[in-house]
Amino acid sequence: MTPHSAPAPRSPERHVEDVEVGGHIIDSLILPKILDLITAAGGNFRIKRISIGQARQDPSFALVEVEAPTKERLGQILAQISDHGAVPTHAHDCQLVEADMAGAFPEGFYSTTNQRTEIRLRDQWHSVADQEMDCGIVVDSKSGHARCLPMTDVRVGDQLVVGHAGVRVLPEARTQERPMFEFMASSVSTEKPKGAAIREIARELLHNRQQGGKTLIVGGPAIVHTGSVEHLSQLIRQGFVNVLFAGNALATHDIEQSLFGTSLGVRLDEGVSIEAGHEHHLRAINRIRRIGSIRQAVETGALTSGIMYECVKHDVAFLLAGSIRDDGPLPDVITDALVAQREMRRLIPGVSFCLMIATTLHSVAVGNLLPAWVKVVCVDINPSTVIKLSDRGSFQTVGLVTDVEPFLRSLLLELAVLGGSATASSSSS
Amino acid sequence: MTPHSAPAPRSPERHVEDVEVGGHIIDSLILPKILDLITAAGGNFRIKRISIGQARQDPSFALVEVEAPTKERLGQILAQISDHGAVPTHAHDCQLVEADMAGAFPEGFYSTTNQRTEIRLRDQWHSVADQEMDCGIVVDSKSGHARCLPMTDVRVGDQLVVGHAGVRVLPEARTQERPMFEFMASSVSTEKPKGAAIREIARELLHNRQQGGKTLIVGGPAIVHTGSVEHLSQLIRQGFVNVLFAGNALATHDIEQSLFGTSLGVRLDEGVSIEAGHEHHLRAINRIRRIGSIRQAVETGALTSGIMYECVKHDVAFLLAGSIRDDGPLPDVITDALVAQREMRRLIPGVSFCLMIATTLHSVAVGNLLPAWVKVVCVDINPSTVIKLSDRGSFQTVGLVTDVEPFLRSLLLELAVLGGSATASSSSS
Amino acid sequence: MTPHSAPAPRSPERHVEDVEVGGHIIDSLILPKILDLITAAGGNFRIKRISIGQARQDPSFALVEVEAPTKERLGQILAQISDHGAVPTHAHDCQLVEADMAGAFPEGFYSTTNQRTEIRLRDQWHSVADQEMDCGIVVDSKSGHARCLPMTDVRVGDQLVVGHAGVRVLPEARTQERPMFEFMASSVSTEKPKGAAIREIARELLHNRQQGGKTLIVGGPAIVHTGSVEHLSQLIRQGFVNVLFAGNALATHDIEQSLFGTSLGVRLDEGVSIEAGHEHHLRAINRIRRIGSIRQAVETGALTSGIMYECVKHDVAFLLAGSIRDDGPLPDVITDALVAQREMRRLIPGVSFCLMIATTLHSVAVGNLLPAWVKVVCVDINPSTVIKLSDRGSFQTVGLVTDVEPFLRSLLLELAVLGGSATASSSSS
Amino acid sequence: MTPHSAPAPRSPERHVEDVEVGGHIIDSLILPKILDLITAAGGNFRIKRISIGQARQDPSFALVEVEAPTKERLGQILAQISDHGAVPTHAHDCQLVEADMAGAFPEGFYSTTNQRTEIRLRDQWHSVADQEMDCGIVVDSKSGHARCLPMTDVRVGDQLVVGHAGVRVLPEARTQERPMFEFMASSVSTEKPKGAAIREIARELLHNRQQGGKTLIVGGPAIVHTGSVEHLSQLIRQGFVNVLFAGNALATHDIEQSLFGTSLGVRLDEGVSIEAGHEHHLRAINRIRRIGSIRQAVETGALTSGIMYECVKHDVAFLLAGSIRDDGPLPDVITDALVAQREMRRLIPGVSFCLMIATTLHSVAVGNLLPAWVKVVCVDINPSTVIKLSDRGSFQTVGLVTDVEPFLRSLLLELAVLGGSATASSSSS
Repeated sequence: MTPHSAPAPRSPERHVEDVEVGGHIIDSLILPKILDLITAAGGNFRIKRISIGQARQDPSFALVEVEAPTKERLGQILAQISDHGAVPTHAHDCQLVEADMAGAFPEGFYSTTNQRTEIRLRDQWHSVADQEMDCGIVVDSKSGHARCLPMTDVRVGDQLVVGHAGVRVLPEARTQERPMFEFMASSVSTEKPKGAAIREIARELLHNRQQGGKTLIVGGPAIVHTGSVEHLSQLIRQGFVNVLFAGNALATHDIEQSLFGTSLGVRLDEGVSIEAGHEHHLRAINRIRRIGSIRQAVETGALTSGIMYECVKHDVAFLLAGSIRDDGPLPDVITDALVAQREMRRLIPGVSFCLMIATTLHSVAVGNLLPAWVKVVCVDINPSTVIKLSDRGSFQTVGLVTDVEPFLRSLLLELAVLGGSATASSSSS
Repeated sequence: MTPHSAPAPRSPERHVEDVEVGGHIIDSLILPKILDLITAAGGNFRIKRISIGQARQDPSFALVEVEAPTKERLGQILAQISDHGAVPTHAHDCQLVEADMAGAFPEGFYSTTNQRTEIRLRDQWHSVADQEMDCGIVVDSKSGHARCLPMTDVRVGDQLVVGHAGVRVLPEARTQERPMFEFMASSVSTEKPKGAAIREIARELLHNRQQGGKTLIVGGPAIVHTGSVEHLSQLIRQGFVNVLFAGNALATHDIEQSLFGTSLGVRLDEGVSIEAGHEHHLRAINRIRRIGSIRQAVETGALTSGIMYECVKHDVAFLLAGSIRDDGPLPDVITDALVAQREMRRLIPGVSFCLMIATTLHSVAVGNLLPAWVKVVCVDINPSTVIKLSDRGSFQTVGLVTDVEPFLRSLLLELAVLGGSATASSSSS
Repeated sequence: MTPHSAPAPRSPERHVEDVEVGGHIIDSLILPKILDLITAAGGNFRIKRISIGQARQDPSFALVEVEAPTKERLGQILAQISDHGAVPTHAHDCQLVEADMAGAFPEGFYSTTNQRTEIRLRDQWHSVADQEMDCGIVVDSKSGHARCLPMTDVRVGDQLVVGHAGVRVLPEARTQERPMFEFMASSVSTEKPKGAAIREIARELLHNRQQGGKTLIVGGPAIVHTGSVEHLSQLIRQGFVNVLFAGNALATHDIEQSLFGTSLGVRLDEGVSIEAGHEHHLRAINRIRRIGSIRQAVETGALTSGIMYECVKHDVAFLLAGSIRDDGPLPDVITDALVAQREMRRLIPGVSFCLMIATTLHSVAVGNLLPAWVKVVCVDINPSTVIKLSDRGSFQTVGLVTDVEPFLRSLLLELAVLGGSATASSSSS
Repeated sequence: MTPHSAPAPRSPERHVEDVEVGGHIIDSLILPKILDLITAAGGNFRIKRISIGQARQDPSFALVEVEAPTKERLGQILAQISDHGAVPTHAHDCQLVEADMAGAFPEGFYSTTNQRTEIRLRDQWHSVADQEMDCGIVVDSKSGHARCLPMTDVRVGDQLVVGHAGVRVLPEARTQERPMFEFMASSVSTEKPKGAAIREIARELLHNRQQGGKTLIVGGPAIVHTGSVEHLSQLIRQGFVNVLFAGNALATHDIEQSLFGTSLGVRLDEGVSIEAGHEHHLRAINRIRRIGSIRQAVETGALTSGIMYECVKHDVAFLLAGSIRDDGPLPDVITDALVAQREMRRLIPGVSFCLMIATTLHSVAVGNLLPAWVKVVCVDINPSTVIKLSDRGSFQTVGLVTDVEPFLRSLLLELAVLGGSATASSSSS
């Protein structure tokens, strides 16, 4: 945020617009943020009316006059604060422009946030489907049906929203439902009581399974290197995982461990460590390529344990997205980033809890695709990964700086205490 | 922060108190913080009156009724929110209790923050001197003179404030004076535009020198290891440093480099690297011990260059505080932590800008002693050090994650561009 | 390494093989490493003959008998130590097997290292071309021409080496040519003399340009965020960059800065910071997509400055590899990881110096593709990235933990001092 | 290390000395290190005789001629390589000089390593007692008794060794006894199989207790913050801890938690988080100061649980060393660094296993004091702390990058599996 600006000398022509904002605007910090953005961008504000909820649960409301030195700057300011829920009082319909070429928006396109959004058409507000940040909004002008559309998916003739008029954002309010989850959100630190945080994640997993919500695991190869294959396998067997997003490395090292008993060539065998050849991971990939796919490797009996095995056996949808550092890769890896993103978008609907473990690349990619209301926990031993994810700016995203193996081990213990595993094992039998 | 609490069933006995809070309570996030603390601690609030400044520069005011389930809890809540400037409307004098033993406060003592504080005595508010966090307040009950007092300095008979009644805290408001400085404060990141930040620090150094404010450098041995002795020496020669706080390591490696041309035994000599013996640092300490002190080493011509040499030559007050990992140490090192803290307290008054470079131990120690209104910049290549310091919670503390040597090199360049060095060299000649 | 093993009771059947190893096997630590691997894998060794060079420059030689409890274990041990240059004394031709399917090796394929390798065919040793780790070796059995082949490029009928017989590895010896470069290699530390290291990198850049070697820059978006666009642009204009590998993020933020003056929406404008809208990066991508390509944007005058602009103007080959976290992406981005890898392989031959700056993903990807004798410097503020790259295990890879912006700024200054920029500006005019 | 040097033109006067070195000089890398140091320092070597043990367990021997351009350089080189066990073949008695002043060595003093050392007096080698790095050696010239002496403890008239003649160092060889321990030593990484490492530490603890060795814990306050008080308390109750070194912070937060149920003001109470006042830690210190000491607080019933309580109850010697960032401090804290170091030296003899947890300051301090043969495990979530300790350069120091709470939780589980706790609980009842 920035400091108080001295009152600028009023220009003869004033560029002003009234906006209104409602909800838990004080304690969710929405109003301070909006006032700050106005001043930071060189504008001024005047609060024309405000009513603050007397008690915590009462909503507040503010009517704010925004002023800027130029018409362009006023537009910029309105665009920014609209992302935080400030809506001009004089509502207009949104403006639609036809796409003139495939794979690109018209200039001036409206760029989405990950918050619930509505567009106004013929004086009626319509919800936007498939909410995702950094997309455009395509509208069926007859029905008013609107949805987020990635840039690469634009087809000639699509009706796309341009400008900010007729678009409103409804920022996620902090809810009362799961207070501990929010306690964790306070900050990234290595010096937090970890037991309580892990217990809360266990509760979320259990709660989500009971409610029929989908749980998505996004995982990196450190799950295998740190010796956590069996932990994650148990989570899968107990029904806590519905979707797994990972890369070539996690699957390769998992399969290497199953086939050769090593991970990156390191084996633990009766207490003796043996570097059993750096090329095992390559041989693992090659063998699966020769068989055709991970599923076929399971079905033919070539692959008999591990994370990928459990996914196949327990119908966990998995997506392996490729990257330029991949060896091989495994035949299941989607090597084209756009195709992989599309497949992720196909699997995300229904996900209500997402646990990201020890991967920056995949976590950021998934964070880009998730709407703001999906609860996300990001676990990594490296604080910088956790910070990157927390910048997503949702009350629903929390970071935990801890070590993968003991984290997963403790998570299983907490689930057992909460009775989760018992329920699971009976349901999976 | 925590969620909205459902309205608890009112107990027959209500424990309530009205508090008022004023200033830039919305945009400095003071009011949201207070409301949050009340709810987090199990209380409820009701906003009885609020007036919000229409424009940025106008102060706001709120009258809040605080309610808690028990009298004890109400006291806890009032104590917490008073640290953020919430003052009960029914003002009382502060309560004084006589110290019954040396080196310890009476139970129930008021524990200070690093914000400006006032105490009320015979219906009059008195400023507290020597503001420092985690102290008590000793009061001369006749004159009303009050000051912060560390626990170890308590003497029998001292009049000490107990409880929170009659104490009010005036949180630092964000000011307009130096906007760039505040821009930097936004967050800890390795991916910020560094040039602009370094330019701003250069401006602060120049500004502080011009205003006659004291600049304090708190430095770690990486200044020497990274090859920055000459950079810091130039800063001293140009009059930008008034006080230096460091430990045995910085001074030892600096003197080692001057005496032997090595730092931790590594020398760069005509492009050839020579490990010239790990014991050079020990020989350097031993030699100064034989001479008696750093000052005597300079005066006898035994020490002819480096940071410590420049400090002696340019009357920069320096304090070397000991630690248990010290070798030697140098004869100037104050090995007792309490004596070192007292000496730091003696040198801090007048300091208005503090630059902490590459030391966690000394930076945290100094951060504990500085009042909230001293501007602090903490420079370290390790984000965790910078995060620790930023937790100090002042708008005046900013962190910069960067590398020491190029940072100091760039700082000198910026000072030269701003004309600082020219002014300095003429004044130092 | 592992401890001395007690002499195991000899089995009636002994599985032994003599290997020989030559070169600077003592001071390059090759012999200790080999002996260690044998014992670690459960084998025993007996040094039958050894001659150690009297002086540093004299090569040494050892004849070692390797023994293992089983035939399989003996094979494993021989495979491992062969990667470090240990060659069985009884030389055989390599064994070739025909690929039975496309995109996968035959079981038992020889897996390459990044060291110079030779295969033996009809009693003659042939060099392997296109050396790259984690490939197979395809051989033209008539001419003896051999080259590394990635798994995905295998075609039915290719003659591929299986087993370790008839393959020998010639580990890179440490050379005398550029001692300072090796001094830097000693370890990853934030507390090294940075000035000397940067000077040495400057010398390498200059030396490489003079020798006509290609310099490859692998860069991440922090180059833009930290305000270093102009620094890298200067390096390009001065002729120090021949190839640039990056991702969508670097190019997007570079173009965003050129088009809108912001990077990730942050602008520095007359000392005032303005958050100018998070969607600028998306608008930048969209605009280039509408134009068709970066080159067309430069040629039509839409893009007039920045890193990508300079690449187009100075014929620097650039490759933008896609990833699943990309927005857009730019039309030039190669979204398929395998296609991007192939394109990198096409551009790498001739590269003799590689500078990796602030990107883990791309650095690891390129590190996988480079042969061991290409000099690599990896610069990152995060030690873990630097550690990952240094694990590549070549004397030619050095890491520097420092900050991007001041690093590049200092590098340009050093080049100017060395006369590099003068030469460059005349040659580029 | 550095490259092969071209043979320098021989000066008419040659400065040469023969040294011999024995033991596991190949696989413990002692010989390569020595040859490297000679060349790096500008000298040359010629291996006059070498015999290499045929099998792993056989010792090797080398006779090396060292040559340097000047007499001074030769002396420097001999000094350096003598720290690695290279002893001149022409043995001399050590040279003794009388200390001319208290608290400082004579110039030219011999500076110790942490390896076993012997001095030669009247043609006889004598072991040096109290081995510690960065000390001098004081000798009783009559009896030949020699011991390490810190600089500050020198008294006038002490007979101190100067120069390197007559001193030999016997570097620790890697032993076979506990292979897994050494496996862990290989490197610092967050991606290692953690379960195996923790199991090995459990074995060491158990082994050490059985053998009657003393186990020293060096701990930081994160043990309390992360919720591990009960874990460490259990270790103490089970008899696995003989000595505890910590600072004011660990003890304060431990006592705060016992008295107020909070750590740094954060409490976990029936799943609700309450920020219960930042000043609790200060009130905790004050209360103990009023009582007089931690022991008195336990004996008077004021302190009834926690780490410090268990130390008092189970006769674990504890030392709290002060630092300049301390609040208070607690009355038991030794605020003078030199006094604290002396007290640590008093408690260290007999320690054969040392576990350092989450503290850089105390870990480095203790690392300075321990001889090379004490096994040390350093556990920290921050790799840089672990790297600092590993630089100690002993095969006996291993680092584990992991999180404190789950580490200690898993350690207790492993001890239970190994039967350690059962034995312990019966012995402690």
